Amino acid sequence: MENFDYYNPTKVIFGKETYNKLSEEISKYTNGRKILLTYGGGSIKKNGVYERVLQGLDGYEIIEFGGIEPNPEYDTLMKAVSQVKSENVDFVLAVGGGSVIDGTKFIVSAAKYEGDPWDVLIKKDNASFTDAVPFGTVLTLPATGSEMNSGAVISRSDLKEKRTMGGPQGFPKFSFLDPTVVSTLPKRQIANGITDAYMHTLEQYLTYPTDNLLQERIAEGILSTLIEIAPKVLEDPSDYKAASNLMWCATMALNGTLRAGVAYDWSTHMIGHELTALHGIDHARTLAIIAPNLFKVKFENKKDKLIQYGQRVFGLDGSCGEEAILRTKTFFESIGIETSISQYTSETDNTANIIKKRFEERGWDGIGERGDLTPDQAKEIVEMSI
Amino acid sequence: MENFDYYNPTKVIFGKETYNKLSEEISKYTNGRKILLTYGGGSIKKNGVYERVLQGLDGYEIIEFGGIEPNPEYDTLMKAVSQVKSENVDFVLAVGGGSVIDGTKFIVSAAKYEGDPWDVLIKKDNASFTDAVPFGTVLTLPATGSEMNSGAVISRSDLKEKRTMGGPQGFPKFSFLDPTVVSTLPKRQIANGITDAYMHTLEQYLTYPTDNLLQERIAEGILSTLIEIAPKVLEDPSDYKAASNLMWCATMALNGTLRAGVAYDWSTHMIGHELTALHGIDHARTLAIIAPNLFKVKFENKKDKLIQYGQRVFGLDGSCGEEAILRTKTFFESIGIETSISQYTSETDNTANIIKKRFEERGWDGIGERGDLTPDQAKEIVEMSI
Repeated sequence: MENFDYYNPTKVIFGKETYNKLSEEISKYTNGRKILLTYGGGSIKKNGVYERVLQGLDGYEIIEFGGIEPNPEYDTLMKAVSQVKSENVDFVLAVGGGSVIDGTKFIVSAAKYEGDPWDVLIKKDNASFTDAVPFGTVLTLPATGSEMNSGAVISRSDLKEKRTMGGPQGFPKFSFLDPTVVSTLPKRQIANGITDAYMHTLEQYLTYPTDNLLQERIAEGILSTLIEIAPKVLEDPSDYKAASNLMWCATMALNGTLRAGVAYDWSTHMIGHELTALHGIDHARTLAIIAPNLFKVKFENKKDKLIQYGQRVFGLDGSCGEEAILRTKTFFESIGIETSISQYTSETDNTANIIKKRFEERGWDGIGERGDLTPDQAKEIVEMSI
Repeated sequence: MENFDYYNPTKVIFGKETYNKLSEEISKYTNGRKILLTYGGGSIKKNGVYERVLQGLDGYEIIEFGGIEPNPEYDTLMKAVSQVKSENVDFVLAVGGGSVIDGTKFIVSAAKYEGDPWDVLIKKDNASFTDAVPFGTVLTLPATGSEMNSGAVISRSDLKEKRTMGGPQGFPKFSFLDPTVVSTLPKRQIANGITDAYMHTLEQYLTYPTDNLLQERIAEGILSTLIEIAPKVLEDPSDYKAASNLMWCATMALNGTLRAGVAYDWSTHMIGHELTALHGIDHARTLAIIAPNLFKVKFENKKDKLIQYGQRVFGLDGSCGEEAILRTKTFFESIGIETSISQYTSETDNTANIIKKRFEERGWDGIGERGDLTPDQAKEIVEMSI
């Protein structure tokens, strides 16, 4: 097993009717009374979450910052940074899905940063965020796992850039996970959430057999559970058993547990992010498009693990590994996720070449768990995915 | 799924040759330079751990407190409490297994407590520890999971009492887990550690099928991994792959992950603690003695889960559940754990009656996941275990 550090101080409050504990949790981190509430397009004002959260914040002064978009935008977030500074906000509460939470991680970190926050995102002179306004989350969409990790992805659409950030200051102090919110979601978002959690798990699993036998089994446990509950939660999003398992799987898929002591491969995400930047395809869907073809192109690298995955997750005995790729694609399609780029856009003539060029520009030559995925292979994978 | 809170701020530093990071970790929690190093019977001075830890503490003033016994004793620990207070210790570093770490949790908590610490252990007037001297651990024996939770068990052998404590102050700030220590352990201790981790998992799993599908699969993953690595690590304790998986499984078995949103049943531990108090049988061995017979007596309660356990962990298809009990007992015996009380002591005439009486004295009537295990049933289980 490879050496690893594991650290995750986020407190999870999981279940129904828990928002009455919000004040108690916030009071552990600030004596101040001024809270910035961040959210997205306003669905929380239609589905009842907003009212219930406000009831849990009785006695606090609430300032709102809405309109954080999917793939949260640097320029939007910088407005909230100004607000946090000018209003002397004591605590930030993100109420939303991964984009709102990611955006909030940037807001709270940038608000305590002296220089230009863009320098941190482009890693200029090793600039880094080290402090943050304390923040917590109320999760409204199980998908990205951002509610229990310190990472975030921030976009600048004018530059067609997506940049990642992290660091210990990025952990939420707490996250409220109430699975009843799933019943308020469009099925498209539920399917995206399932896919996102599934792919987060695969990226930390589908490499080569490693010495961390337990982590491999936990990954297989998440994949098996998602396969088990996916049709149920899509059939009936108010099925609490299915919804709560989806929510917990999505959190566990990216809270640091799976990566401990194993090899991982974020190549699918790297190609997928470029597809979102180019064509605006939902993040989760780009992963479902790319992964099966990436597994084909890197088949020899991943063959042993594909066989194990096939056996333990799909019950395939004596498979050579290819069947597991097909089953993965079939699973995504069974929950309504189209797995070809041309099902989302007709402007595909230059997609593969542009992504190859992007890889070259970024110096991404030799990525993946064995450090051997080239820009040409990224191009090949995208061509196969059209 | 039942509502749950999950919170675990302990940082794990897992792997080989990491003790050079000790000073860096400690400096995050104190500017002071005076460290109390707690340990047990002195094996750390024979196996090289002591020297390597001291090298990692270069620049600190080290005070030692050795001699913390298995089933750590209140009177012993109170001497360390005095030392922490009189010497104004800034940080306590526990170097040892579960007993040393449990004892250290008591020491650091009692040192910050104004009243009589025994009041906390007997829960008099709801007394509780709320503050503690910061502490970390260097684990030398994978077994109890104490390195990544806030709980401890403290004994007063004069009263034949074992008492538990907990609370957020009981989390180590960090724990160094170096699997190479396994190669220095007697096989008896390795077998005990495997059994302890296995039973911690079973107590949080072998109840009834719950709605937390992922947690059930993680539990099954720990059990399967322990079964896979047990013969290897006993055959060759320097087998790093086997030793590191044992160490990580033991930690994961009791760090809060498994209990999230599921039913649990600590009855085997409750009977087992009495057996240790009465006959001095190793803690882990009492669990291996009691569990199979407890599963038989509470068979109807646990039948559905026994069938699932048999299928997923032992590959038993179409079993009625009894076979899984037998396999559990056989597993313990295969690693050298005797599973009858009479294999440890000949003074068994009154054991069952005494334990029944203990249960009655403590008001333990109606324990277990369904609240229906009686003192008479505890007696029956012990009689079957003689």
